[in-house]
Amino acid sequence: MSRLHLHLVSDSTGETLEMIAKAALAQFEDADIVRHFWPMVRSKQHLDRIVPELAANPGLVLFTLVNPDTRERLEDHCRQLSLPAVPAIDAVTEALEDQLGQEAHGRPGRQHLMDDAYFKRVDAIHYTIAHDDGIGSDNWEEADIVLAGVSRSSKTPTSIYLANRGYKTANIPLVIESPPPEILYRLKNPLVVGLTTAPERLVQIRRNRLLSLNENSETSYIDDERVREEVKFARRMFADNGWPVIDVTRRSIEETAAAVINLVGERDRREIPPRVGPKPI
Amino acid sequence: MSRLHLHLVSDSTGETLEMIAKAALAQFEDADIVRHFWPMVRSKQHLDRIVPELAANPGLVLFTLVNPDTRERLEDHCRQLSLPAVPAIDAVTEALEDQLGQEAHGRPGRQHLMDDAYFKRVDAIHYTIAHDDGIGSDNWEEADIVLAGVSRSSKTPTSIYLANRGYKTANIPLVIESPPPEILYRLKNPLVVGLTTAPERLVQIRRNRLLSLNENSETSYIDDERVREEVKFARRMFADNGWPVIDVTRRSIEETAAAVINLVGERDRREIPPRVGPKPI
Repeated sequence: MSRLHLHLVSDSTGETLEMIAKAALAQFEDADIVRHFWPMVRSKQHLDRIVPELAANPGLVLFTLVNPDTRERLEDHCRQLSLPAVPAIDAVTEALEDQLGQEAHGRPGRQHLMDDAYFKRVDAIHYTIAHDDGIGSDNWEEADIVLAGVSRSSKTPTSIYLANRGYKTANIPLVIESPPPEILYRLKNPLVVGLTTAPERLVQIRRNRLLSLNENSETSYIDDERVREEVKFARRMFADNGWPVIDVTRRSIEETAAAVINLVGERDRREIPPRVGPKPI
Repeated sequence: MSRLHLHLVSDSTGETLEMIAKAALAQFEDADIVRHFWPMVRSKQHLDRIVPELAANPGLVLFTLVNPDTRERLEDHCRQLSLPAVPAIDAVTEALEDQLGQEAHGRPGRQHLMDDAYFKRVDAIHYTIAHDDGIGSDNWEEADIVLAGVSRSSKTPTSIYLANRGYKTANIPLVIESPPPEILYRLKNPLVVGLTTAPERLVQIRRNRLLSLNENSETSYIDDERVREEVKFARRMFADNGWPVIDVTRRSIEETAAAVINLVGERDRREIPPRVGPKPI
């Protein structure tokens, strides 16, 4: 299997390019890829500094440079080095040019403008951190989403992920012995979503967690019968309150979050007759 | 200004597509865009359910469907509705096919495989939340990155952002009256990065924060002279310890995080002579 050097050249944070590369690479088996990451390339000088690195590790160059000068320069260099250079989002930019009847302008990093949407997202992150694990239930009404689920049903990382996409997210662990605060049953603004998972999977995850904490006592936390009861208790609560439920057993955090965002979209479409798209992020 | 309906159709979480759309749209002025988000479209049945919505809001269709059947069906539908349909990452996939000498397979969602990198990322999120705002300094040696900076220099959202990209990140507020734990000066594994910002900007942000908390007292927290001293104190600490510094004044969280990741990359390239790319995420 031969090795491929993959150079990601961006005039912004490079995040879009990284996600494109990841999504595209997922369609290939056992590729031996060495990634080289070149973000914030906004001048010819900066570009010229990385050219020796391209020459030293020849491979495929993917780029998202919007400034025509920098872009042309990279293409020239790649031509001289006989490296394939692919503009990663041109197909989409060109389709938008057609549809909008405008030419794309060449100013990089504009998607990181600190506009209202940006500050909303930063607020969502602060809110979410301050409302992890049942904390701050007094402010739950301000949340967009409240995730409820048994321990280790990935509430925290899913919340953080949703926060990054602009949703203020609180989460509450469901414990048989200690009922959630009453306000959970009376929330108007946030969508409450139940997270559940297969009891066997939960026992396994928790067992690993105890191992990593160097605790090997057999507690009810990992007792099969007990965990089954816990999951049943949570499911019944979801059903009694008409909360939508997502089974996270075979879902990654991103997939769970996408399912939650779908639910928010469905609710919004039901509630606001002239339908609008999801919140921009 | 005419309105454009933008349909994002994905067989996975749709996140890549959303970022591509955002990056491309940032190159246009004042576009009135209504986004319609269709993630997890993995069957003809699911696809057929959204076709009436495409027909009701005709516009541009961007897609990342890897399954050839679903993909062909979407393209057929769009042809019948006379809607332009753009495969958003095909240019990259095709370049990879050429380079790897393999055909892309049609299995969706593979980038969300729960592999080692995935669990590493989830760990990073848990770690980062547990080490926000100076908490848990005993475990700082386990971090990849420790961010130090005065209050409201965006340490927390930057940390969370880095966690999402797989970096265990701790952060510590620098306060003149209360020196940081001694361990900060002796860390071997993590890269310590100083965040700084213009004092005027800091006063403004803090003033807004107090307003939002309904506190309007004139405290030293927003006293110009005092804030200037605080920033100077932090800058001196960064210099004394040889920590790299990032000025966040005009940077978004994403840009600050990209700069931090750059610093980590530079350090790794210095330390590991046969250079490797950044960590895959």
